[in-house]
Amino acid sequence: MEYPDALLIIRHNIYILRLEKRWSQEKLAFAADIFRSYTGSIERGETGPNTFVYFKIVKALEVNLETIMKGT
Amino acid sequence: MEYPDALLIIRHNIYILRLEKRWSQEKLAFAADIFRSYTGSIERGETGPNTFVYFKIVKALEVNLETIMKGT
Repeated sequence: MEYPDALLIIRHNIYILRLEKRWSQEKLAFAADIFRSYTGSIERGETGPNTFVYFKIVKALEVNLETIMKGT
Repeated sequence: MEYPDALLIIRHNIYILRLEKRWSQEKLAFAADIFRSYTGSIERGETGPNTFVYFKIVKALEVNLETIMKGT
């Protein structure tokens, strides 16, 4: 597996978890205290943020880092 | 769980995987193509690198991102 592939899997995992909560990207960004544009670029797989941003996202989604890395 | 706690778990997972391969930090840094000082600061939990660095580390250790995030 190459890095872009891992990013796509992570973003898909975040996308599914967000939909399960019926949240918009804005709602996730607000809950995770990150910029709205950032959730979009993460979900499009354009950026691989640092651990702290992923940590804020998983905390907002009430899962752990392991969950969003599943399948990488 | 707070972010520093997650970093400590991740670094412990990396440390154990590195020892299982009987690698020094230098050897891991070389295999992952990252600076030697970086492996040290990651293992001391001083830094939470971006996904790409973690990806290079897991590739060198022949595991996946999910493995080093176990328990976070």
